[in-house]
Amino acid sequence: MNPEPTDGPLTFEELQLAARNRGIPLEALRHDITPTGMHYLLVHFDIPDVDPATWRLEVCGHVKKPFQLTLESLQKRPRTEFPVTIECAGNGRARMTPRPVSQPWLNEAVSTAVWGGTPLAPLLEEAGVKPGAVDVVFWAADHGVEKGFEHDYARSLTVADAMSPEILLAYEMNGRPLEPQHGAPLRVVVPGWYGMQQVKWLTRIDVVPKAFDGYQQKIAYHYKKDKADPGTPVQRIKPRALMIPPGFPDFLTRVRTVERGRVAIRGRAWSGHAAVARVEFGVDGAWRDAALGAAVGPHAWRSWSVEWDAPAGDHVLTCRATDAAGNLQPTDAYWNYAGAGNNMVQDVRVSVR
Amino acid sequence: MNPEPTDGPLTFEELQLAARNRGIPLEALRHDITPTGMHYLLVHFDIPDVDPATWRLEVCGHVKKPFQLTLESLQKRPRTEFPVTIECAGNGRARMTPRPVSQPWLNEAVSTAVWGGTPLAPLLEEAGVKPGAVDVVFWAADHGVEKGFEHDYARSLTVADAMSPEILLAYEMNGRPLEPQHGAPLRVVVPGWYGMQQVKWLTRIDVVPKAFDGYQQKIAYHYKKDKADPGTPVQRIKPRALMIPPGFPDFLTRVRTVERGRVAIRGRAWSGHAAVARVEFGVDGAWRDAALGAAVGPHAWRSWSVEWDAPAGDHVLTCRATDAAGNLQPTDAYWNYAGAGNNMVQDVRVSVR
Repeated sequence: MNPEPTDGPLTFEELQLAARNRGIPLEALRHDITPTGMHYLLVHFDIPDVDPATWRLEVCGHVKKPFQLTLESLQKRPRTEFPVTIECAGNGRARMTPRPVSQPWLNEAVSTAVWGGTPLAPLLEEAGVKPGAVDVVFWAADHGVEKGFEHDYARSLTVADAMSPEILLAYEMNGRPLEPQHGAPLRVVVPGWYGMQQVKWLTRIDVVPKAFDGYQQKIAYHYKKDKADPGTPVQRIKPRALMIPPGFPDFLTRVRTVERGRVAIRGRAWSGHAAVARVEFGVDGAWRDAALGAAVGPHAWRSWSVEWDAPAGDHVLTCRATDAAGNLQPTDAYWNYAGAGNNMVQDVRVSVR
Repeated sequence: MNPEPTDGPLTFEELQLAARNRGIPLEALRHDITPTGMHYLLVHFDIPDVDPATWRLEVCGHVKKPFQLTLESLQKRPRTEFPVTIECAGNGRARMTPRPVSQPWLNEAVSTAVWGGTPLAPLLEEAGVKPGAVDVVFWAADHGVEKGFEHDYARSLTVADAMSPEILLAYEMNGRPLEPQHGAPLRVVVPGWYGMQQVKWLTRIDVVPKAFDGYQQKIAYHYKKDKADPGTPVQRIKPRALMIPPGFPDFLTRVRTVERGRVAIRGRAWSGHAAVARVEFGVDGAWRDAALGAAVGPHAWRSWSVEWDAPAGDHVLTCRATDAAGNLQPTDAYWNYAGAGNNMVQDVRVSVR
């Protein structure tokens, strides 16, 4: 029932997931802000059918003054918007050996959007978190079964983390109301954390006096050595750099043809732990520093670039980021049982003519 | 270099394509008009980086008065918009045995958007198609290699087909400017035809005095028995019905859990040959008629529905459409060498409890 990581070929179940979830075409990295229709998407169950007119957000649990809010009343609260780079915790999973069987991402599960909404912290302050509160649980409208556990999707933050001023309850994306697949009418945006924490189709914020033990919190999204290992929680985004593959592709193999001579290589880099401090560009294993552009925002990726004098022949191009906390992308896969946080370097095969 | 159809497992090349192209999550069928960010997407090469300010549309070739148009001047021409259902010609390919190796669609490469722009025919009339003209070639900005042929993507229509009043040069989708991945700044929309004819990133309309023999026209997109068979051209969309899978899914297997009792089954059906005349719903191989809703427009899908008294146990649900021209979806795959036009019936596995 729960397949073990495999050295075998891609399974039908992985194909089904790849057909309904969606990464970015890597040339989308040219945009500071990913156009809405190109934003990556990972949906555990089905996109729920939520009627915004009857929808309510419930703030409840271990608080002095529980309350409900309509979408309209949320929209009347102080509004802010800023760009956030979000990446799926499973990005890179299909590049692990053996390969954990789930959504088979290669490198493309990352995007940056401008999220608009109202900050979470003042809402919790109004509700009045009681002494003894431990976690703030974000419950969603999507429902399904995962590894035998039937549940509504839910994730929690500690009370201290939930009070971070940058956490948004977002009802807009790129200046427009959220589309259904991105969490309409309301989702959470937790800058710097992997996608599992960006709870979509939010219905209830429940403050609880003990650690939340829901499936997505306690069992899924852990770095584990094996099935028996309780592991450590997957939280913040590790550093990663990606390049826009230069030249033009072969349809099937995606191998690139590049004209010899000066080639402008462009890409993006991000980390949820600290600012990106360095990006290196590699040709056939030899690294050199790339120039860094400004970050699109405090919680969003930054651009990088390098000019490459491309000599004729076949080459493998790579890139890697280091953040200000000293985290460097590994050349080999970071293997773990659930296939999370594998930020190994991208490689792009080119044929220079 | 050109892999033959295979009985083997999914290849790495197919995974790469599945990771960058995108189908709809089937629950998106609940929307009359597919939200922009959920619309299916198949891009042969890379999404090109077109600057709308310097972009021009060239109308040239076998015409009396060739001319160029800016986007602004196109937008000043008579404007129309209407919904069109577009489906990838390869939809269903990964359900063939042996499986042609390309983008591995199951059932999900179809969507309906409202396309806005200006009709093509008056533009061709202004240019004055000369006697002896045979084809109208639509050239695009995307460039790459396919099966050894390096080319800009291009497809043609006969002059008679190109003069059909419903063909649009579209600069809007769902009331907004085209996003890059859908062909910005201008694409062709040919209602009733498969996606390969909906040329994105249009740069040139070239009227030619002999049959166009470009790769995408003469070699690709043919129904062939084998590699040597010249085949017959893939053109109009065959009938297909799809249902919104009822109940809720298991994350990995996508098998559905459904509560016993009355279940509302909803879906969409379409055909590029004629109106959809009948939709049938099947439970474990027994068919009955579904109720038909109105079409979203003359060139768009129609809804269908059926109430099912679901008995406990495991069942396979299916649906199939028949159009007014008498075309019925087959139960078995329509096999052909390139994996086009396989409109075999969808099946959805449910476990009723």
